Amino acid sequence: MATDILPAALTELIEELGNLPGVGARTAERYAYYLLRQQTSTSSKLADALRGLHSNVTSCPVTFALIDADQDVSPLYTDASRDKTLIAVVEEPLDIVALERTGQFKGTYHVLGGAISPIDGVGPEQLHIPELVERIKTDNVVELIIATNASVEGESTALFLQRFIKDAGVSVTMSRLARGIPVGVDLEYADQITLSHALHGRSAL
Amino acid sequence: MATDILPAALTELIEELGNLPGVGARTAERYAYYLLRQQTSTSSKLADALRGLHSNVTSCPVTFALIDADQDVSPLYTDASRDKTLIAVVEEPLDIVALERTGQFKGTYHVLGGAISPIDGVGPEQLHIPELVERIKTDNVVELIIATNASVEGESTALFLQRFIKDAGVSVTMSRLARGIPVGVDLEYADQITLSHALHGRSAL
Repeated sequence: MATDILPAALTELIEELGNLPGVGARTAERYAYYLLRQQTSTSSKLADALRGLHSNVTSCPVTFALIDADQDVSPLYTDASRDKTLIAVVEEPLDIVALERTGQFKGTYHVLGGAISPIDGVGPEQLHIPELVERIKTDNVVELIIATNASVEGESTALFLQRFIKDAGVSVTMSRLARGIPVGVDLEYADQITLSHALHGRSAL
Repeated sequence: MATDILPAALTELIEELGNLPGVGARTAERYAYYLLRQQTSTSSKLADALRGLHSNVTSCPVTFALIDADQDVSPLYTDASRDKTLIAVVEEPLDIVALERTGQFKGTYHVLGGAISPIDGVGPEQLHIPELVERIKTDNVVELIIATNASVEGESTALFLQRFIKDAGVSVTMSRLARGIPVGVDLEYADQITLSHALHGRSAL
């Protein structure tokens, strides 16, 4: 876009908003123009929140979940009502939010910090796997739910984890989240791999 | 989302980002987490751009286009190479960007500041119509291209403008942007109203 069509301040905001994932020029323009029409407080509140982001957020040294900078360990780990012998292993911190939304999981979490992906140059040594093995020993963990994504990378990571933990000589039950047809989706639209998983993982009535 | 799953600073940013148009909770989470993984400079640059937005942007008193706060009149109006006797009337300032991108228009612009919409409580008295009539007289405007949106509101506004300007006793040629089949779209996917417009507005070969 020619910089002289729009005011410099607006062009700058559009450029910065365009850095967000999946936001193209048109969407960035729409966001910026929306903020311009709103009261100054809307954009200044957003600016404040951005300024506080990095300084106020840190990683839990035990679970690698995101925590407040003034917290030592994730409250999801220290919470006495949660079962420390059951760990859900996830790729990213936001996966915890998704699992917590179900309200069905009362164990603790372990964030790997990604998934094994040779294309992106992510090997197992970049993931928090040794720390997981340590936790299994320290907390006498009984069950590990490997809740990595249902992607190629997530599957590889799950497979690698399974072998690595067996080789480490720790005894723990390992399971994987069920693959199957998402609720509300018609059979005819399910792909064949998902449908194969759904067949194998069928439950008795 | 339970506020204790994620750090307060991240939750706050997610909430603020969720105020953007069309951004739901999931998208806001994705944006916030992306910014967290980027260097601090990415979010602080965005914060700076947000802080400068309202103070550095104002409205041109002649064309109502958006201009830098230190400019008096839109450079698209003062530019001597542009034809002041030809005005494209648009609804919103960003419509100027769309028209400028074509590189085909060498006249000046007039931003109405919206479109007539009884549902949204926008009547003609809220639009910059008197200022347009004034400009037509002052600049001896010869042609008016009514470039409002091809929506019900845009059409009503165009119709109202046409009548209002005739009633104001100013003599000016008025035209409307052509309605028709967008480039790259198959006939079978065009709706019947668009197709009717395309038929009526057909051009000789």
